Amino acid sequence: MIEQLLPKLVITDIDGVWTDAGMYYDQTGNEWKKFSTSDSAGVLFCKHLTIPICIITGEDTNIVQRRAEKLGIEYIFQGIQDKLSVATSLCNQLGISLSEVAYIGDDLGDVALLKAVGFSAAPANAPEYISNLVHFTTKKSGGDGAFREFVEEILQRGGVLSTVLAHYHIG
Amino acid sequence: MIEQLLPKLVITDIDGVWTDAGMYYDQTGNEWKKFSTSDSAGVLFCKHLTIPICIITGEDTNIVQRRAEKLGIEYIFQGIQDKLSVATSLCNQLGISLSEVAYIGDDLGDVALLKAVGFSAAPANAPEYISNLVHFTTKKSGGDGAFREFVEEILQRGGVLSTVLAHYHIG
Amino acid sequence: MIEQLLPKLVITDIDGVWTDAGMYYDQTGNEWKKFSTSDSAGVLFCKHLTIPICIITGEDTNIVQRRAEKLGIEYIFQGIQDKLSVATSLCNQLGISLSEVAYIGDDLGDVALLKAVGFSAAPANAPEYISNLVHFTTKKSGGDGAFREFVEEILQRGGVLSTVLAHYHIG
Amino acid sequence: MIEQLLPKLVITDIDGVWTDAGMYYDQTGNEWKKFSTSDSAGVLFCKHLTIPICIITGEDTNIVQRRAEKLGIEYIFQGIQDKLSVATSLCNQLGISLSEVAYIGDDLGDVALLKAVGFSAAPANAPEYISNLVHFTTKKSGGDGAFREFVEEILQRGGVLSTVLAHYHIG
Repeated sequence: MIEQLLPKLVITDIDGVWTDAGMYYDQTGNEWKKFSTSDSAGVLFCKHLTIPICIITGEDTNIVQRRAEKLGIEYIFQGIQDKLSVATSLCNQLGISLSEVAYIGDDLGDVALLKAVGFSAAPANAPEYISNLVHFTTKKSGGDGAFREFVEEILQRGGVLSTVLAHYHIG
Repeated sequence: MIEQLLPKLVITDIDGVWTDAGMYYDQTGNEWKKFSTSDSAGVLFCKHLTIPICIITGEDTNIVQRRAEKLGIEYIFQGIQDKLSVATSLCNQLGISLSEVAYIGDDLGDVALLKAVGFSAAPANAPEYISNLVHFTTKKSGGDGAFREFVEEILQRGGVLSTVLAHYHIG
Repeated sequence: MIEQLLPKLVITDIDGVWTDAGMYYDQTGNEWKKFSTSDSAGVLFCKHLTIPICIITGEDTNIVQRRAEKLGIEYIFQGIQDKLSVATSLCNQLGISLSEVAYIGDDLGDVALLKAVGFSAAPANAPEYISNLVHFTTKKSGGDGAFREFVEEILQRGGVLSTVLAHYHIG
Repeated sequence: MIEQLLPKLVITDIDGVWTDAGMYYDQTGNEWKKFSTSDSAGVLFCKHLTIPICIITGEDTNIVQRRAEKLGIEYIFQGIQDKLSVATSLCNQLGISLSEVAYIGDDLGDVALLKAVGFSAAPANAPEYISNLVHFTTKKSGGDGAFREFVEEILQRGGVLSTVLAHYHIG
């Protein structure tokens, strides 16, 4: 677990976390992903606390680029095989340690990074052998608000969730 | 709660209410939303009772414009950050008060308006802290008929649901 | 209920029966529906028994035209407001009565025809006030095999389901 | 059941297995399928064990061709009516018998091949009369990781699942 109240960086996988792992293909070579605008609140909450967000994904698509730009995500790395290595480099660049990072991922390519960070999470629909090795499993499935729940859990553990919600006149 | 039998205006959010919050992105810059034709009956019921419908949404897309036009929605405001302000202006224009408005929304941007109207609702899949501050939570999730259920609840509370259904030879 | 073992015509609604009522809109004016190939077996079973199938839908799209052509549906009527009238005309043309027709629909526009046919059905996700007026409600929802289940129920009641399945080396 | 520890060939249907049987049609003649990247791990596991994978499907689309190429599937046969015949030919070519094959399918066109192979499976959402004639039914539905679960079951029965997962630093 992270020692300080809040992580200094939030990293997230995309497929299976921001989506339900669905890959929509058509006849022409085009491709789709389905995001949930519910997760936008997770991004807003991090921005409110000035916690930067980083996307690291094995796929490489314009789809994720567009979504990241729309939400104002600070760091995005696509087509990555070794996620731990990329995360380590970014931490070095930011002058923080992996123990100060929170990460949510759902599959084989996420294992090394999930094991390395201070706070690790998986969505409800991750395989059991992935869930078994993380600190927290969301109740929501990927693509249905899992990222938002992950951020809310971070805020809850950091003791600032009600303060952040109050900013939105809730509670 | 509204004093009179029926609201004089129905306002609705789109993403997470008329949809399941899904944002479909492709590789080319195009975007999709999935509506439910089940909600069309909610629009029909309002038209039958000459209650105007107003869409207020934070997003700004041709998608919602097309859907609104197809269903003959009276008022549509897109790209709105301050929904309460827009709703207040419309009420002034129509010579009604916010206490005569019914509103359904599901997220942070809806809170101020949900608190201000005479009858407020959220779909089943809204965050608990949103559901906690509305008069009514639908059993249906957004995109699966939540708006229709919201309208049927309004008609039920107004004592006219069976009369309206009888118009369609039901009951 | 129909007197004879099997109906002489199967009529079906599309949205909410062959689909989950989802209307996918994009930014360019294009539109999507999601069918289930599971329902193809329902069509095959009818063809095996030489029971013609008729689609009657209130919408009017190339989408349904293509799907109907692919499956070899005998009759298709789109953009129809008065479904009972169209069905009555087709029955006259075929020299059969509405009591020899089986129909599945899920919403307001289906009520008159559901009440008129010999065997009426609605998918699991139809409003309760629609389900209340049909002979049979499928366990499957629209777009998830409801039409196939409807046809299998017809075959079961007609005493020929196991014979038809045996044709496919099942049972 | 197969006598040896692992099958020498894994064959899979597509619609209803790699997808939830959904056929997305638009207005222009284009078509979509939704795959799950969760199933990619099933392909990876087979590759790790050098078990070739073969797709046999009744449909014939660029969609499946693209998905198969992306995942590096060894054999792909589309537009096939007689799946048993194609599988038999491939077995002859590879010098193996159908008893050394594992197959997952979900519908009428899969029955003959499901009955012929050494290990047969169906996804959770297959009709009961299909599930009744296979060795194993997955808990996951088609399009939601059923193929991955099928492969994991094969590895579990072959006694190598934990070894394979250990390769990914799991367990």
